[in-house]
Amino acid sequence: LDYQHVQVPFEITLWIMLASLAKIGFHLYNKLPSVVPESCLLIFVGLIMGGIIYGLNDRSPPVMDSDIFFLYLLPPIVLDAGYFMPSRPFFENIGTILLYAVVGTIWNVFGIGFSLYGICQVKAFRLQDVSLLHNLLFGSLIAAVDPVAVLAVFEEIHVNEKLHILVFGESLLNDAVTVVLYKLFRSFCEMPTIKSVDVFAGVGKFFVVGLGGVLVGLSFGFTAAFTTRFTKDIRVIEPLFVFLYSYLSYLTAEMFHLSGIVAIISCAMGMKRYVEANISLKSHTTVKYFMKMWSSVSDTLIFIFLGVSTIGENHEWNWPYICFTVIFCLIWRALGVLVLTFFVNRFHVNTITSKDQFIIAYGGLRGAICFSLVFLLPDFRRKKLFIAATTVVILFTVFIQGMTIRPLVDLLAVKRKRESAPTVGEQIHIRFLDHLLAGIEDISGHWGQYYWKDKLEYFNSKYLQKILLREYDQPKSSIVLLYEKLERKHAIELAQAGQLGHGPAHPSFLCSAFLCSSSDRTVITDQKLEDTPNPDVLDNMQEILARNLYRIRRTGPAYNRHTLPGDSEPTEQAKEILILRHKSL
Amino acid sequence: LDYQHVQVPFEITLWIMLASLAKIGFHLYNKLPSVVPESCLLIFVGLIMGGIIYGLNDRSPPVMDSDIFFLYLLPPIVLDAGYFMPSRPFFENIGTILLYAVVGTIWNVFGIGFSLYGICQVKAFRLQDVSLLHNLLFGSLIAAVDPVAVLAVFEEIHVNEKLHILVFGESLLNDAVTVVLYKLFRSFCEMPTIKSVDVFAGVGKFFVVGLGGVLVGLSFGFTAAFTTRFTKDIRVIEPLFVFLYSYLSYLTAEMFHLSGIVAIISCAMGMKRYVEANISLKSHTTVKYFMKMWSSVSDTLIFIFLGVSTIGENHEWNWPYICFTVIFCLIWRALGVLVLTFFVNRFHVNTITSKDQFIIAYGGLRGAICFSLVFLLPDFRRKKLFIAATTVVILFTVFIQGMTIRPLVDLLAVKRKRESAPTVGEQIHIRFLDHLLAGIEDISGHWGQYYWKDKLEYFNSKYLQKILLREYDQPKSSIVLLYEKLERKHAIELAQAGQLGHGPAHPSFLCSAFLCSSSDRTVITDQKLEDTPNPDVLDNMQEILARNLYRIRRTGPAYNRHTLPGDSEPTEQAKEILILRHKSL
Repeated sequence: LDYQHVQVPFEITLWIMLASLAKIGFHLYNKLPSVVPESCLLIFVGLIMGGIIYGLNDRSPPVMDSDIFFLYLLPPIVLDAGYFMPSRPFFENIGTILLYAVVGTIWNVFGIGFSLYGICQVKAFRLQDVSLLHNLLFGSLIAAVDPVAVLAVFEEIHVNEKLHILVFGESLLNDAVTVVLYKLFRSFCEMPTIKSVDVFAGVGKFFVVGLGGVLVGLSFGFTAAFTTRFTKDIRVIEPLFVFLYSYLSYLTAEMFHLSGIVAIISCAMGMKRYVEANISLKSHTTVKYFMKMWSSVSDTLIFIFLGVSTIGENHEWNWPYICFTVIFCLIWRALGVLVLTFFVNRFHVNTITSKDQFIIAYGGLRGAICFSLVFLLPDFRRKKLFIAATTVVILFTVFIQGMTIRPLVDLLAVKRKRESAPTVGEQIHIRFLDHLLAGIEDISGHWGQYYWKDKLEYFNSKYLQKILLREYDQPKSSIVLLYEKLERKHAIELAQAGQLGHGPAHPSFLCSAFLCSSSDRTVITDQKLEDTPNPDVLDNMQEILARNLYRIRRTGPAYNRHTLPGDSEPTEQAKEILILRHKSL
Repeated sequence: LDYQHVQVPFEITLWIMLASLAKIGFHLYNKLPSVVPESCLLIFVGLIMGGIIYGLNDRSPPVMDSDIFFLYLLPPIVLDAGYFMPSRPFFENIGTILLYAVVGTIWNVFGIGFSLYGICQVKAFRLQDVSLLHNLLFGSLIAAVDPVAVLAVFEEIHVNEKLHILVFGESLLNDAVTVVLYKLFRSFCEMPTIKSVDVFAGVGKFFVVGLGGVLVGLSFGFTAAFTTRFTKDIRVIEPLFVFLYSYLSYLTAEMFHLSGIVAIISCAMGMKRYVEANISLKSHTTVKYFMKMWSSVSDTLIFIFLGVSTIGENHEWNWPYICFTVIFCLIWRALGVLVLTFFVNRFHVNTITSKDQFIIAYGGLRGAICFSLVFLLPDFRRKKLFIAATTVVILFTVFIQGMTIRPLVDLLAVKRKRESAPTVGEQIHIRFLDHLLAGIEDISGHWGQYYWKDKLEYFNSKYLQKILLREYDQPKSSIVLLYEKLERKHAIELAQAGQLGHGPAHPSFLCSAFLCSSSDRTVITDQKLEDTPNPDVLDNMQEILARNLYRIRRTGPAYNRHTLPGDSEPTEQAKEILILRHKSL
C-alpha cells in the first residue's frame, strides 16, 4: 500500500465526491431543501464531519485554508455568477448597486468598527486591549455581504429580478471596497504612526483596485473572444479558453492586489457575447454545463469546509463582544439601506419599496469570505475572539436569516420573479422602447443610460465585432438567433415525440403530424388512388428517393480524435439538401 | 506585485494556455499537420522552449516530474481512450491483443536486456560496469509501446480498425507487464541475492496486477453507474461522477501497486453503457466534450514537456550503447511480431497480412511512459546513460517512424478504415449473425466468443441493468435508440436549413417542405377556397391554435441555479403535446 504517493489527488477527489454525494442525498429527499436552504444543510454536514474528526483525532480538524479558498474555490462561483449575470437589470441598476456596494460597505465598516470600539470601552467587558484600529479591521472583514451565501439563499426564494440583482450585485462589487479597507487597516495596524497621506492614498487606492480589476478583466475577456476566432478547426479545446482566460484574469488581478472578483466578472461579461457567437453549439453547452457544475461543487465544498472549520479550539468566547457584533451588523446594515435608499428613491421613478428595503437589509448574509479573511489576520492576542465572532455572525446569518427569509418573503408578499421568460413580442417592444428613448435622449441632449447604451452598441458593431467575431459579414440579429434557437428546440421536441415526418415513410402519418386537415387528407389519398401515374407525383417520389439516398450515403464522418462525431457536418449536409431542393424546384 | 501567492495556479494555467495556443497555431496553417504528426511539432516546440530556458538561465530546464505525469497527465488520456474504445473490435481481438501485450512485451524486455548485456561485454565500448540486471531493468522500461504516442500517430493515418486496435490495445494492456517487470527488476537491483521464490512471486504478481486492475476498475465503474441512477433532480453534477469515479479507480489501483491504466480502462468501458442511459443528453455531450478536451490538452502538455526535458545536462553519451539500443528495439519488436503472428494466424480464419504485420512492428512507438520511468530509477552510476538512450529511442520512434509511417501506409496500400459508419442495415445483419452464431455454438457445445457474449448479455439484461439503470421498465433496443438519435439529428438539420414547418404559418411552404406533391397542394388550396366554413377545417384550425397557444404559454422555465435552461422540460412538453394530439384525434 502506497498511500503517500497518491494522497493529494486522492483526498481532493474524495472531498469533491463527498460534496457531490451530499448534494444528491439532499435532493433525494424532496421536502428537506424546500424548508432548509442547502447551505445550512451543508454546514450541518460539515459540523458533523468536523465533530467526527475532532472526536477521533482529539485535536482540531483542519481549518479551510484561505489560499485554497481564494485561489481555487471562489473563482468558479464568481465566474459562473458573472457569466450568467442578467446584464440588463444589472446595468439598469448599476448606480444603485455601486452606491450600496461602495458607500454602504464603508458605512457598515466604520459603523460597526466605531460602535464595537465603544463597547470595548466598557470596563465590565474586559475588552480594553482591543484598539480602535483592530475594531475597524474587524469591521472591514465582517461588513461585506458574501456573494456565495447570498447566491445560495436568494436563488431558492425567487424574489423579483431587481431585488435579486441589488443584493447580489452589491455582494459582488463590494469586494473592491473590502480588499482596500482590509489591507489598509491591516497595514495601519503594523505601522507605528499613521500619516494623513496614507489615508488619502487609501482613498485613491480604491479607484485603482476597482477600475484596475475592470480593466484587467475586460482585456482578458476580449483576448479570449479574439482567441476563439481561430478555433474553427479544433472545436474540442474551445471551452478551455473560456475557463483559462477568466482564471488568468482573476489570478493577474490578485497578483497586482486588484479586485479579483471584479476582474473575473468583467472578463466573463465582456467575453460572453463574442465567445458565444464564435464557438460551436456543443462547446457552448459544455461551457455552460461545466461552469454550473464547477460552481455548484465549489459552493458545496465551501459550506462543508465552513462547518468543519467551526469545530475546534481556535475560539475565544466573550459574550458581550460577540452578541454586540451580531446586533451591530444587523442595525448598521438596516440603517445604511434605509438612508441610501432614501437618496436613491429621490432620483428614480421606479422606487424601491419598503418591503424590498427590508429584504435587502435582511438578505445581507455573511459567509466564507469573512471567514477566510479573519484567518488571514496577522497573529495578535485577540485573533481567536475575532474568529469566534466571525463564526457566530456567519452561522447566525446563514441559519437564522437564511431559514426565515423565505417565510418572510411569503408573509410580506414581496413581488416574485415572473415564472416565464419574456415573449418575443415583449422583447421586440422593449427593444423598440430602448431605441425610442435613446433617440429622445439624443434630441434633448440628456446623456442618460439609453444614450450611452446606444453609443456602446454602435462602437460594438462598428469596431469590436469586426475584430472579435469570426463570421462578421452579416451579423445575425438577436431575433433571428432566437428564432433559430426556438426552431431547434421545436425540432428536437418533435423528434422526441415521434412527430417528425420523414416524407416517404407514411404519407398519412406525415399529414396528421403536420396538420393537414383531415378533409384535405382524404382528398390527397383519393387523388393518389385516382391518378397514380401522374408525372408530378413521380417527380416528387424521385426527389424523395434522391434525398433519402443522400442521407443514407452519409450517415457519419470518419472518427478523428480531435473532433466529436457529427461536429461540423450537420450544417454542411443541410446546406447540400437545400441546394438539392433548389435544383429540384 | 505578489507573484509568490498565485505562482502555482498561474504557471499551470499558463502552461495549459501555451499548449492550447500551440494547437491552434498548427491548425491555422493547414498543410503542416498533414505532413508532420502533431506530436513531432509539439516536441519541437518543447525543444525550442527548453533551449530558451537553458539559454536564459544557464542551467538545465526543469524535467517533467514523473509524479505529475502519472498522477495528472496520463489518466485523462487513458480515460478518453477507454471511454471511446470501439468495444466490438477490441473484444473480438482480445486474445491477439493480450498475446502481443503480455508475451510480446516479455519477449522484448528479455531480448533487449540480454542483447544489450552482450554489447556491454565488448571491452572496446567501456560498458562492463552495466550489470545484467540493470540491462534487464532498462529493457523493461524501453520495451513497452506507449499509448499516448501510438494514439497521436495512428489517429492521423486512419488504418483499418483491426490493425488500429491491435497496436493501440497492446500499448494499453502492456502496462500491467511493464509495471510488474519494472518493479521486479528494480527490487532485484536492490536485493543482495535473488532467490528463485522471488522470480515465481513475480510471475504470480503479474496476474494480481492485471486482474486486480480490472476488478478495481469494474467495481468503480459499476458504482459510478449506480450513482448516476439518483442524479435525476440534479443533472448539473452528473458529468462529475464519470470523472471522479474513473480517477478514483486509477488512484486506488496505483495505491495498491496494481495497473492504473488497466483499471481506468475497465472502469470507463464498464460504466459507459449504463451511464449513457442514465444521464441527460446535455450531460453526455459535456462528458464527451470534456474528455476529449482534457485528453487533448494532456497529450499536448506531455509532448511539450518531453521536448523541454530533452534539453539539459542530464545525459551521458555513449555511441555504441545508444545506437544498439535503437537497433535492438527495432529488431526484437519485428521478430516478436513475426513469431507471435505466425501462431495467431494458425488459429484464426481472418489472418493478419504481412503488410499489417509490418505496420504493427513499425508502429511500436515509445513515449512519455518510458521517459517518466527512467527518471524514477534509483540513482546509480549509469542512470544518465539510460536517460540519454531512452531520449534517443523516443525521439527516433516519434520523429523518424512517426513521420514515415504515413507514406509507408500509402506505399504499401494498407487497408484503410472505412470512411462512413456502418448503415442500419449492416448493423441489423451483424446482430442477426451474432445471435445465429451464438445459437450454433450453443448447439455444438463449443464455448466460443459468441457463446460467452450471449451469456454476458443475458446476465446484463437480467441483473445488471435492473440494478444500474434508472428507467428499467422497458429497455429500449439499440435500434430504437439509433432511430431516435437520427431523428434528433435530422430535426436539427431541418431546423438549421429552415425547412421545419410550423403548421399554421405558411401552408404552402409547409407542404413544399414536407414533400406533398405539387399537384396535391393545388387541390388543398382549391378545396380550402371552395369550402372555407367546413367544420373539419375549423376544428383543425382550433387544434392548431390550441397547440400554438400552448407553446406560447410555456416559453421558458424559471431560472434556477442548479438546472440549465430547458433542461428537463422539452420531453415533458412533447409528452403533453402528444396527449393533446391524442385527445384531438
